[in-house]
Amino acid sequence: MSRKIVTLLTDFGTKDGYVGSIKGTIKNLFAEVDIVDISHDINPFDIKEAAFVLHTYYASFPKETIHLVVVDPGVGGDRMPLLIRTAQHFFIGPDNGVFKFIFSREAYTAYKINVDDYILDKGFTFHGRDIFAPAAAKILKGVAPEKMGLRLDDRTEIPTVYFTKESEGKYNLEAISIDRFGNIITGFSKRDMEKINETTINSIVIKNKTITEMNAYYSQNEQGDVIALWNSMGFLEIAVVSGNAQKTLNFDKYKDNILISIS
Amino acid sequence: MSRKIVTLLTDFGTKDGYVGSIKGTIKNLFAEVDIVDISHDINPFDIKEAAFVLHTYYASFPKETIHLVVVDPGVGGDRMPLLIRTAQHFFIGPDNGVFKFIFSREAYTAYKINVDDYILDKGFTFHGRDIFAPAAAKILKGVAPEKMGLRLDDRTEIPTVYFTKESEGKYNLEAISIDRFGNIITGFSKRDMEKINETTINSIVIKNKTITEMNAYYSQNEQGDVIALWNSMGFLEIAVVSGNAQKTLNFDKYKDNILISIS
Amino acid sequence: MSRKIVTLLTDFGTKDGYVGSIKGTIKNLFAEVDIVDISHDINPFDIKEAAFVLHTYYASFPKETIHLVVVDPGVGGDRMPLLIRTAQHFFIGPDNGVFKFIFSREAYTAYKINVDDYILDKGFTFHGRDIFAPAAAKILKGVAPEKMGLRLDDRTEIPTVYFTKESEGKYNLEAISIDRFGNIITGFSKRDMEKINETTINSIVIKNKTITEMNAYYSQNEQGDVIALWNSMGFLEIAVVSGNAQKTLNFDKYKDNILISIS
Repeated sequence: MSRKIVTLLTDFGTKDGYVGSIKGTIKNLFAEVDIVDISHDINPFDIKEAAFVLHTYYASFPKETIHLVVVDPGVGGDRMPLLIRTAQHFFIGPDNGVFKFIFSREAYTAYKINVDDYILDKGFTFHGRDIFAPAAAKILKGVAPEKMGLRLDDRTEIPTVYFTKESEGKYNLEAISIDRFGNIITGFSKRDMEKINETTINSIVIKNKTITEMNAYYSQNEQGDVIALWNSMGFLEIAVVSGNAQKTLNFDKYKDNILISIS
Repeated sequence: MSRKIVTLLTDFGTKDGYVGSIKGTIKNLFAEVDIVDISHDINPFDIKEAAFVLHTYYASFPKETIHLVVVDPGVGGDRMPLLIRTAQHFFIGPDNGVFKFIFSREAYTAYKINVDDYILDKGFTFHGRDIFAPAAAKILKGVAPEKMGLRLDDRTEIPTVYFTKESEGKYNLEAISIDRFGNIITGFSKRDMEKINETTINSIVIKNKTITEMNAYYSQNEQGDVIALWNSMGFLEIAVVSGNAQKTLNFDKYKDNILISIS
Repeated sequence: MSRKIVTLLTDFGTKDGYVGSIKGTIKNLFAEVDIVDISHDINPFDIKEAAFVLHTYYASFPKETIHLVVVDPGVGGDRMPLLIRTAQHFFIGPDNGVFKFIFSREAYTAYKINVDDYILDKGFTFHGRDIFAPAAAKILKGVAPEKMGLRLDDRTEIPTVYFTKESEGKYNLEAISIDRFGNIITGFSKRDMEKINETTINSIVIKNKTITEMNAYYSQNEQGDVIALWNSMGFLEIAVVSGNAQKTLNFDKYKDNILISIS
């Protein structure tokens, strides 16, 4: 029998004891767990980045993995603590948008975690340790989701789209993540292309640069070239061969857009 | 039977092989160990920060967990290598102050680890790998602390206090940690309040800002407000709602103080 | 039966989902694996740094550990994906120099991983997840290296040397790593000393500083002193007691050299 997995995605950073106390709490309640660090370096309070990163790894994990996401600027406020059941996985975290991609990609049942089931005498500010971690331990122990909170049957999610149509064949794309290498990852995927019934990218304009060809992989061009490719997650990505696209283009993910012409 | 846990807190950073070689050494000596990363990003040589972070997570972990702390500016000098036994846990690390909070909060027995039991032919500079890691492996194997070093029976610790009384009802607090979100965590706890027989915080002066009310949680106020609250570890904390208090107040933890008026 | 270990060394950073999807992929294919994070903070594309860091920890790990190294600027290009078998360990990663130290220190058999055995329908840019991770899972499952790729029998490696002889008894050393504490680690080891039949370091010139004595450990001198010592990995290292040698000396590892006089 293999150990059950809990993955951890947070914006807690790695210099404090927050992550440690979440790990300790889970292990204390269910010793035979395999806790997997994904990242604790999500930009503080950056829900959109957390949502994107989550959807790049969750599907790789084995059936019954519990994905814990604690990026929670409104902690202690009125956002709901959520438990989500999909065919393969569980997800636990705040109802603030971190599960946007999951909702649009998976069939799911959502539950509002019943906060009153958890002892909160240690303070009000650490739902990661005091609610989400013990909720994960309940799933590990085999407690049924129905017993952990109200089923949210009337939930409807507006599908998230990170691009807008400017005119016929012209789209304005949003960057949703800049990775460590400075690659600029847009929210526009191959799947989106299919949905709008287009097949070819004719040009991409980013800052003062125009790209007219798609690359198959990074090292196809010369070092220093600005290139575009469908990345390993299926998203349109702007990169610089053996370089840093964000720095080369002086690109600001919160301000700058990417214009594409497709047909 | 669940696997035994070793937690790791260091100032080694995460770009070198130091942490890796500690992990390898422990696993090589005792394969069925569950090594849990807490943080390797303690400020280099910042013993006070390590002591604070340790005490925020240790109690969450299961009974018999071994907490390894390697923040050790005097490595190779004359500070003692320590093994500490409390009712619930083991602690291993240098005797330089990293266990201050443990000593003041737990009943304990301390042992001076016998360095001569360890082979040090690889050099003199890495006690983490060459003494502390194999000492942890001995505990994992069930070796009695008494067999690992001299029991320090006459040890007395002066309780650590991170605040000074200025005048009746006026206290000067030290910041002991700034977390990733820029929250300023003082060394003044609810427990300290009780000890000095006071119940109410009337005002907090930090830099040029005066706070006259305590918050119950972060999102109670408006975004950008400077607030004070008892945090999830029971310490007085200065925060900015959805912002960064350190940056907003231009606060320097090594220079600036916090003045409170209580009654 | 203890769980099999896979160590992970990458330059992926810790803010994205790349590491998570490698971990998920391995666990999905072989649940009972113990994945150990070494570092994901190798400087982007810095093959030399990865090679150095790898060789500081690999030997600590138990027999049959699989060391996965994904620092791969030429991903998708024509560099070979490698599987290496030594007496104790397996190594998997690109054939771009990350295994330089392994080749010069261990007897080994190398195999060119057969890429066609792996399904690559998710894109072309993520060999870490799509080739190296499933290759590690095959080793975990007990597949023989011979079945995973062509044995490279005619492989000869030029031993790597990080120093050059200037004149009789004068050597120019390259810095191969600056660790988190600002310690400057040269590529010159005690072993190299023996090979060139010398026993004594008479002087070390680094920037405008001359060191004429070797230290046994860090805290032997006064705080702030620039010192030299054989570090815990056996390499000549320049350090500042309780300080940062890189900053104190304004040392640039890509430009500055270290001159030693030995006899």
